[in-house]
Amino acid sequence: MDLHTITSPSFLKELDNKQLVELSEDIRRFLIENLSRTGGHIGPNLGVVELTLALHKVFDSPADKLIWDVGHQSYVHKILTGRASQFDSLRQFKGLCGFPKRIESDHDVWETGHSSTSLSAAMGMAAARDIKKEKNHVIPIIGDGALTGGMALEALNHIGHEQTNMIVILNDNEMSIAPNVGALHNVLGRLRTAGKYNKAKDDLEYLMKKIPAVGGKLAATAERVKDSLKYLLVSGVFFEELGFTYLGPIDGHNLEELEENLLYAKKVDGPVLLHVLTKKGKGFLPAEQDVIGTWHGIGPYKMETGDLVKSSNTAPSWSGLIAETVRKLARTDERIVAITPAMPVGSKLEGFASEFPERMFDVGIAEQHATTMAAGLATQDMKPFLAIYSTFLQRAYDQVLHDICRQNLNVFIGIDRSGLVGADGETHQGVFDIAFLRHLPNMVIMMPKDENEGQHMVKTAIEYNDGPIALRYPRGNGLGVPMDSELQVLPIGSWEVLKTGTDAVILTFGTTIPMAIHAAEQLAQQGINAEVVNARFIKPMDVAMLHEIFSRDVPVVTIEEAVLQGGFGSAVLEFAQESGYSNAVIDRLGIPDEFIEHGDVAELMDEIHLNSDEVVNRVKMHVQSTKKAGFNAL
Amino acid sequence: MDLHTITSPSFLKELDNKQLVELSEDIRRFLIENLSRTGGHIGPNLGVVELTLALHKVFDSPADKLIWDVGHQSYVHKILTGRASQFDSLRQFKGLCGFPKRIESDHDVWETGHSSTSLSAAMGMAAARDIKKEKNHVIPIIGDGALTGGMALEALNHIGHEQTNMIVILNDNEMSIAPNVGALHNVLGRLRTAGKYNKAKDDLEYLMKKIPAVGGKLAATAERVKDSLKYLLVSGVFFEELGFTYLGPIDGHNLEELEENLLYAKKVDGPVLLHVLTKKGKGFLPAEQDVIGTWHGIGPYKMETGDLVKSSNTAPSWSGLIAETVRKLARTDERIVAITPAMPVGSKLEGFASEFPERMFDVGIAEQHATTMAAGLATQDMKPFLAIYSTFLQRAYDQVLHDICRQNLNVFIGIDRSGLVGADGETHQGVFDIAFLRHLPNMVIMMPKDENEGQHMVKTAIEYNDGPIALRYPRGNGLGVPMDSELQVLPIGSWEVLKTGTDAVILTFGTTIPMAIHAAEQLAQQGINAEVVNARFIKPMDVAMLHEIFSRDVPVVTIEEAVLQGGFGSAVLEFAQESGYSNAVIDRLGIPDEFIEHGDVAELMDEIHLNSDEVVNRVKMHVQSTKKAGFNAL
Repeated sequence: MDLHTITSPSFLKELDNKQLVELSEDIRRFLIENLSRTGGHIGPNLGVVELTLALHKVFDSPADKLIWDVGHQSYVHKILTGRASQFDSLRQFKGLCGFPKRIESDHDVWETGHSSTSLSAAMGMAAARDIKKEKNHVIPIIGDGALTGGMALEALNHIGHEQTNMIVILNDNEMSIAPNVGALHNVLGRLRTAGKYNKAKDDLEYLMKKIPAVGGKLAATAERVKDSLKYLLVSGVFFEELGFTYLGPIDGHNLEELEENLLYAKKVDGPVLLHVLTKKGKGFLPAEQDVIGTWHGIGPYKMETGDLVKSSNTAPSWSGLIAETVRKLARTDERIVAITPAMPVGSKLEGFASEFPERMFDVGIAEQHATTMAAGLATQDMKPFLAIYSTFLQRAYDQVLHDICRQNLNVFIGIDRSGLVGADGETHQGVFDIAFLRHLPNMVIMMPKDENEGQHMVKTAIEYNDGPIALRYPRGNGLGVPMDSELQVLPIGSWEVLKTGTDAVILTFGTTIPMAIHAAEQLAQQGINAEVVNARFIKPMDVAMLHEIFSRDVPVVTIEEAVLQGGFGSAVLEFAQESGYSNAVIDRLGIPDEFIEHGDVAELMDEIHLNSDEVVNRVKMHVQSTKKAGFNAL
Repeated sequence: MDLHTITSPSFLKELDNKQLVELSEDIRRFLIENLSRTGGHIGPNLGVVELTLALHKVFDSPADKLIWDVGHQSYVHKILTGRASQFDSLRQFKGLCGFPKRIESDHDVWETGHSSTSLSAAMGMAAARDIKKEKNHVIPIIGDGALTGGMALEALNHIGHEQTNMIVILNDNEMSIAPNVGALHNVLGRLRTAGKYNKAKDDLEYLMKKIPAVGGKLAATAERVKDSLKYLLVSGVFFEELGFTYLGPIDGHNLEELEENLLYAKKVDGPVLLHVLTKKGKGFLPAEQDVIGTWHGIGPYKMETGDLVKSSNTAPSWSGLIAETVRKLARTDERIVAITPAMPVGSKLEGFASEFPERMFDVGIAEQHATTMAAGLATQDMKPFLAIYSTFLQRAYDQVLHDICRQNLNVFIGIDRSGLVGADGETHQGVFDIAFLRHLPNMVIMMPKDENEGQHMVKTAIEYNDGPIALRYPRGNGLGVPMDSELQVLPIGSWEVLKTGTDAVILTFGTTIPMAIHAAEQLAQQGINAEVVNARFIKPMDVAMLHEIFSRDVPVVTIEEAVLQGGFGSAVLEFAQESGYSNAVIDRLGIPDEFIEHGDVAELMDEIHLNSDEVVNRVKMHVQSTKKAGFNAL
């Protein structure tokens, strides 16, 4: 059928199995074609085609609440709820969001991006339903990877205790983004291999009846034996122990089996966990055969071959550069250990892992544990490199504060994907890290201007033994600059003048340095001579240089690809105030007090006026008004 | 024995059981006597006397690592490691810390205060040991309450998977601070009632041998039956499923049983969980009989009767005032739901719970889940009141950011124990909340000057339906002001002039308002007329009033009992900068960039120069230099 004609999922109720199978094929073709142009999370969505069809057939969204954990697997849901025509603009500026978005549709009842929130959200929605004495169903759909996130386990514990009516769909594809790890993963593995466990039920019931007859001396334990035999009948003992009715495992690509089990789950009292086995990338061979996570989320590709459309940028990726420099140093520094919360691929730690398997820990989606484990390693004089995306470090704020900073431990935090990340949008922008790390005592924060400085900062972080040190680096590739062969240690808190100037000073770091340089060039053409400083240490700042700058009595403009409130510019304001430069003219450019949606980073920056034109305007304005004020005062 | 003579736990190796029992009595007497004068965490410590003795007898601290989760149960450990003589100063300024402190002793290998970190820390220490090919034991001691914290579950999942050698002591007293909740608690309950499960082993082994003979048709399932029978033999199936060897439950007050099991655990390969049953408050009747958590942590008391030494402050407690006002409003507003992460007593929600049991959720120690569950409720047009201590809200930073603020949901966050908390010290100071909440889009933050304004702010928060709103309130009691009988809604972002003045303006809120008023009185005696403003909305600020103030061109001094970096004063700096008041003289008083230890709040404030004398000095200095500058300019 023409998917563009769908306005509501209600038509599914009328379809028979054959028609549903045909529709599933249409949807797969649509996804493979569309995503070949736009890119997107193809693997997860190809894996949930049948599951999404079955859910929308059996339940009545939006009265029944479908809550997609993480949310990158919501494309089929978006198609079935009338958004097929918007897929041309998927993940693009002002286009269709790659995650559920309440403003897009009433069927998107919960917004996500970070993992493991669906069960807590579902508990809230179910509690509201029960208080209001309403009757709708609440159905969180959570992956086996997301299930290991601490808050999902907190929620399981609470839901099982409250015995709230809820149908948890465990979408088990044996992958989070990378292949899964953890004991829970092993639990699921045992359930999977148990296979058609239910078929043994009859036999076991027969056995049960026989047991009392086995021997006279067993009378006292007969009851316990019976209790324990429930473990034979119910394979999901882990979930049963937590108070859930466990159903499954079932084939997540068999529409009849899905429908039958969902209908059954609807009737069960209390919380149900339906274990559904799916295959990431199902129906598209390159994605199906992916074992390391390449096809989890991806850019444009050639439909026929699965070849990726190559980026024109041939400079090293930031993640790769940082991880490989850590790896190089680990050859001579036995203290170095790497930790990732389920991002060995994204953080490019495969090389480190293969060279130092015993010094590499992928802890699963578990940012809190990862962070405190790093602190534990540091108490034993190891040097942990905690590679974590900026947006995910938010999950471990308290652990960074309490376990690392308060104990002043030598943990090297590699903050990957700092700044705007583009297509992933609101939930993944790495723009809060300066504001939430800068006020932590003992913390050092730095960001390099290019990949050569980046490698020196890795060396600096490894050699620094006075407490925590964080290195921010952006998503994507470096600038392609020449690389020094010998690594250097930068003095902590040292800035660098990139271009001298007498009329104004621009303080910035990392990704916004090219913007500042460009602005300075434009200003020079207009007769304004602006200095550009690489403020590569965000904390501590270069106090000597700041004193020298403020003593000049020229306007100071700060630029940061991070939130303005409490950010680097505010640190400069605080310095000026504390040092008594009460007449200083300071201006701050950065991310305003709002959430930044998805889109191309350059477009987003223009949208919020964070570009070289704005830098030029601001500097010019302040230089002119300062000069005027100075003239008047004479 | 005289506990003051102990310098190291090594003497325990020589003691026989009778001597250990005597020592346990000496320790109990010491704790009950000393804490009657100083207050402290008596319940948890009386519960672990024998456990701590056994641990120090069987293991060799500090080579073997004892990691106390939360850490308030480390008093016996402190006595046995040579710190008995410091108990007179327990939890007092410059005195013995109430939690493990690495600077105090080599035996304190990990600092805590927040729950559920011990397993992650232990994993880090064990990983370091294995990499270095060392042989020491790592022994985290975690309560059944702390086990439900998400990061502890993340750690269990990782440790079970890695099969790291580690002995986890589950100190199960059926309480966290309040009685425990959660499905895991039920799991433990089943293990407890299973009782002497091991005694049934012989019977079951006999049964197992009989099974193959039961019937011919069972051949195919016999293997599975055998596998499943391990559930009969191993009662801790939940932990076994996660990869741990489960031992117990054992009597945590029986020294011989403890020693025997610890010696056995030492020999087991891979992770072991030893389930130890203890009684909080053991040996002191008032504490033993406590069922709601009064004797968890407590002030001074009369040893004979257990009567508490009454505080002279008869004003209502802040927690009580806020919770009871929410309760009152809930009578007519059916949207109101209360959520607490294991603090129904501390947050004084017992009244709400008894009146609205179906609208009250104690989710256990699970701040992340609590926060996102609140968001889930808000999506369904409920009005959740999330009562959470400032220090514990740190655990849910990402959930506040993503699930509440990003979706702009109507959650009312009651931030209890904001500001310095005193005796609990470093790990409990509620001084970061402004800095970590202020940069979140959509967030409203307020703090009342007294309990009357506090009740109006509760009303304001309940009536506010434009997004999240947070109400900070301090530990302890109000000022005893008269209470209006009718509740009012304050205009969002409105400040209040408490005292007019022409020479300077002091901007502050909450607990530091009396300090500002006092300073203004002192300044008036010196001929300086300072205005005092109740800046009760920290975000958004009263922009109209700020413009009016800055247009006066007098010094502005901000005061906050919170960290300076990125705090309220920085918000004022940002406002002045953004509004072009580049000549404004602003000064900021608050918590400097360091961790603040335990002690009496007034002493701590003096130590960091956050008192009225300093306010007087600063205002005077700025008024004089501004006047001088003004005079020169004329």
